[in-house]
Amino acid sequence: MPDPVDPVALTAALVRCPSVTPEEGGALVLLEELLSAAGFACTRVDRNGTPNLFARWGEKGAAKSFGFNGHTDVVPVGDHAAWRVDPFGGEISDGILWGRGAVDMKSGVAAFAAAAADFVRDTPPDGAILLAITGDEEGGSADGTVALLDWMARAGEAMSVCLVGEPTCPETMGEMIKIGRRGSLSAFVTVTGVQGHSAYPHRAKNPLPAMARLMDRLASAALDDGTAHFDPSTLAVVTIDTGNGATNVIPARSRATVNIRFNDRHSGDSLTAWLEAEAADVAEAFDVAIDVVVKVSGEAFLTPPGALSDLVAGAVAAETGVTPVLSTTGGTSDARFVKDHCPVVEFGLVGQTMHEVDERVPVAQIGQLKGIYRRILADYFG
Amino acid sequence: MPDPVDPVALTAALVRCPSVTPEEGGALVLLEELLSAAGFACTRVDRNGTPNLFARWGEKGAAKSFGFNGHTDVVPVGDHAAWRVDPFGGEISDGILWGRGAVDMKSGVAAFAAAAADFVRDTPPDGAILLAITGDEEGGSADGTVALLDWMARAGEAMSVCLVGEPTCPETMGEMIKIGRRGSLSAFVTVTGVQGHSAYPHRAKNPLPAMARLMDRLASAALDDGTAHFDPSTLAVVTIDTGNGATNVIPARSRATVNIRFNDRHSGDSLTAWLEAEAADVAEAFDVAIDVVVKVSGEAFLTPPGALSDLVAGAVAAETGVTPVLSTTGGTSDARFVKDHCPVVEFGLVGQTMHEVDERVPVAQIGQLKGIYRRILADYFG
Repeated sequence: MPDPVDPVALTAALVRCPSVTPEEGGALVLLEELLSAAGFACTRVDRNGTPNLFARWGEKGAAKSFGFNGHTDVVPVGDHAAWRVDPFGGEISDGILWGRGAVDMKSGVAAFAAAAADFVRDTPPDGAILLAITGDEEGGSADGTVALLDWMARAGEAMSVCLVGEPTCPETMGEMIKIGRRGSLSAFVTVTGVQGHSAYPHRAKNPLPAMARLMDRLASAALDDGTAHFDPSTLAVVTIDTGNGATNVIPARSRATVNIRFNDRHSGDSLTAWLEAEAADVAEAFDVAIDVVVKVSGEAFLTPPGALSDLVAGAVAAETGVTPVLSTTGGTSDARFVKDHCPVVEFGLVGQTMHEVDERVPVAQIGQLKGIYRRILADYFG
Repeated sequence: MPDPVDPVALTAALVRCPSVTPEEGGALVLLEELLSAAGFACTRVDRNGTPNLFARWGEKGAAKSFGFNGHTDVVPVGDHAAWRVDPFGGEISDGILWGRGAVDMKSGVAAFAAAAADFVRDTPPDGAILLAITGDEEGGSADGTVALLDWMARAGEAMSVCLVGEPTCPETMGEMIKIGRRGSLSAFVTVTGVQGHSAYPHRAKNPLPAMARLMDRLASAALDDGTAHFDPSTLAVVTIDTGNGATNVIPARSRATVNIRFNDRHSGDSLTAWLEAEAADVAEAFDVAIDVVVKVSGEAFLTPPGALSDLVAGAVAAETGVTPVLSTTGGTSDARFVKDHCPVVEFGLVGQTMHEVDERVPVAQIGQLKGIYRRILADYFG
């Protein structure tokens, strides 16, 4: 029997590929070589310069097809001088693998690629295994997993279920599976009045009292009390800016940005309507113009607890002894795109050092993660 | 009898002196020559590079001494290309004198200098006439009229009453005398919380909801309903700034500036105490730190209607046929310094084009103003 694929060596090799978004950096080329050698049919699905890799073992259109999704691009290193190691060195010492992407999420991609390659070689399943790996999750995401899913739909490549290998555990390996994500939107608010002199406020229309009232109202609003699987929605006023340096001038305009993380009680449309109504109310009260432009990054979604989460939770418990909680906390991920195609959950490493200087992962966790992914495949096809 | 001093020619000559603050530009030198020739004892009272001119006709310590105060410095020309004339050309055409300072307030200085010179020559009074003319009213004012008043106090040069020759009439010559001014202060507010990620607001302390609440409270507060001689006090939030360009980041800090124009119900100290109490209340409610730094530009003051305002109003009515209102509206002026030394009122031209491109004045108004000032002197000493 051939040697199993070493997920630690593969992670280190991937870390050595400088794939800061939007650079491919050699990471997808490396994975394509490995997966092709393992019998996967590979296709580069690049769009508008964004590199993406699709790989399938088994027949197209198989009744059971298990999908993995992940990304090889990484965020910038930040303060290079503050790193204790070369962020693209893939250095391993004292059981720790260091480098940008060690946690988010080259280890996750290495673990599912290694698990899938070993699994199809040792116990060829009656079905298909699909890997959709993008080079743009950390950037704009416009031509990343979305491009892969678009292409798959056109090519008749369907996943029955999908697991996204993002880091999901806050502190302890195995403690959390994500079964949904909150939605996210940003609202860009512009209040426009009439400029004037501070000594004659009745001749001007100051936009700032209206801005203060509107931001106070929005920040004070309780959006909900949470739902069965979600925390309460949150709203953060992230900036208010005017840029008027003169104390004797009433400005004509002020701008603010509000960010909302919302659960399944809301949608981008319902929150946009609420924001516009609040703005209109304040605009009328203060006799100023208020413009609201909303950009929805992702809608809230949920894969209700059931077969897929049971499958993943069972494998996690068997490999780690930890019973994971099913959570919808945290930021956003590419699962927000996958959810339109098939049931999706997320499970991966402890994410503590992601995006930080000295990003690092215990190599033992990478081996554990590969074991969990392989057991998931075995149980799914078993 | 010698020719009277022509206040229009004198204004034009002063406009030709490019005395943008802090440049003397030849304006005080010109006035010193004219006043010395007219029998005034002149002293340059420069301080820290700021040019100032003091002139007295009559004995020091006279029982009756009438003071005039004004300035020869001007604000910058602004968009030079937008002017229809050379802003320092002193051009006169179709009865209009054009140029920077034509209204604010070289015409006022020329009118009182001409009136005083003619008056002491034609009808030498039993008393003294004092002129305190500064080259820094439009700038920081630290070494302008304040320096003149400091020097006068040390030198035993006292004014019984004082008239400041600033433009005071909104639209029609003669319609308004200022008998006081509102106070002015600016408060610089900094709200400090703890930076964090928009997806995890409970781990951060966002300064912006506290900022919005505080600014809403301040902007909504009715400071008073006005007093016998003053309009209601006003408060303007002039800027709120944060400078956070990232929608996924909760900022650590935000800054705002508030400008208050206040009447004689308040003082810089009482308003500072109120602002600090409001800030402390909001800081406690939102568990953030709020710092308030107050800079008082001037306290409110009033020269109650009486002998001085009757004197000026009578002369205005006699020369123009217009009965002036006694007002305390508008911005601030050097009268805020003079009021600590003697009763002071302000009367001058129509101020419509002051500080604007194409600043200009009908020459007839300059002659009228000289006539009013001369009649004031005659009535005061008569």
